[in-house]
Amino acid sequence: MNSEEARFQMTKKHHKSTFLKAKKQGKMDLDFIPLCDFIAETKEFFTASCCAGRIALVGLGKNETKKESAFHRKWHRKVTLKEVKEGIDSFNGEVLWLKQEPFIFHIGTNSLENSTRILAACERAGTKRAGIKVAKKGKFLVEMVGTHNINIPLKEGTEIIDEKFLKYLVKKANEKFSVNKKALKKLEKEFKKSLK
Amino acid sequence: MNSEEARFQMTKKHHKSTFLKAKKQGKMDLDFIPLCDFIAETKEFFTASCCAGRIALVGLGKNETKKESAFHRKWHRKVTLKEVKEGIDSFNGEVLWLKQEPFIFHIGTNSLENSTRILAACERAGTKRAGIKVAKKGKFLVEMVGTHNINIPLKEGTEIIDEKFLKYLVKKANEKFSVNKKALKKLEKEFKKSLK
Repeated sequence: MNSEEARFQMTKKHHKSTFLKAKKQGKMDLDFIPLCDFIAETKEFFTASCCAGRIALVGLGKNETKKESAFHRKWHRKVTLKEVKEGIDSFNGEVLWLKQEPFIFHIGTNSLENSTRILAACERAGTKRAGIKVAKKGKFLVEMVGTHNINIPLKEGTEIIDEKFLKYLVKKANEKFSVNKKALKKLEKEFKKSLK
Repeated sequence: MNSEEARFQMTKKHHKSTFLKAKKQGKMDLDFIPLCDFIAETKEFFTASCCAGRIALVGLGKNETKKESAFHRKWHRKVTLKEVKEGIDSFNGEVLWLKQEPFIFHIGTNSLENSTRILAACERAGTKRAGIKVAKKGKFLVEMVGTHNINIPLKEGTEIIDEKFLKYLVKKANEKFSVNKKALKKLEKEFKKSLK
């Protein structure tokens, strides 16, 4: 085994054990487990950080920078109008956003060639936001992000959304949440076919 | 010159002439011209398709698929409430979304090593959504996308947003449009420093 391959094996082993630990502790998004289980058993691929998608209320400071942002509420499932309303009512910060965020997923591999196999599978599955983020000898990392999202400023000073429209937005966020899950399933199917 | 290098030179030449033609015809986003001019003069990089960001009303069909989507209105600048209202009022399709979309930009190069130089520059500029999309001998393509966006369903059947909240959303879309432009300027500065 050359040093490049040794490095890859070490990285894969590390990520596999992180995944198995998270799974055991119930910290894994259930929708990702079948795919991560599959990839953990391949020879040349591993999974790194992932999120299957979520609906969240994100509080931002006056400048709305990433640094100032903080989850006010976060759900890895569909939400009710009541839950969202409670979150809005109890928010005392500057600006509150409703976000339905798509999945984000990272697959690692050992070569540029295998990275392009991942990209090709993403394309076939219709996940067009995908790219190689890390390209080092023995460690390649592909990031893929879903495209179904909602991103709305909801509450700021005296600006407060009316309940009827909020109800509609919650319905749409739940709809998009499901569409995002379907896109993820498609990706899983494609990977199981092509990353053996 | 080997065949790989010849292929790269051909691709670079093609993209350079496409850019110069678009510039001459006034089809280029003005905010991108200084950066594209700079990159056109480098030896190892070229620019492919780009958009500096926009505000749009996008009409979707019943299933809200990409296939069914169509720009109902599109502005590469800030917008007025009046313009947006006119767009909403004249929409007769199924679902209308207000989108403030971030920049999307592609830089091509001749090697994996140069691709990672682009990625490193993106990271330093704070553009975290960046990755290598194409990795072939003689043709590497890095895609980068801004993270500042708004994405809101506005009108569907009898669901129509009230004017007060719409006014607020238009204000926010314009704000985010400016923040997106600043992020793009930062990227330009970083590329001018590191992609010589």
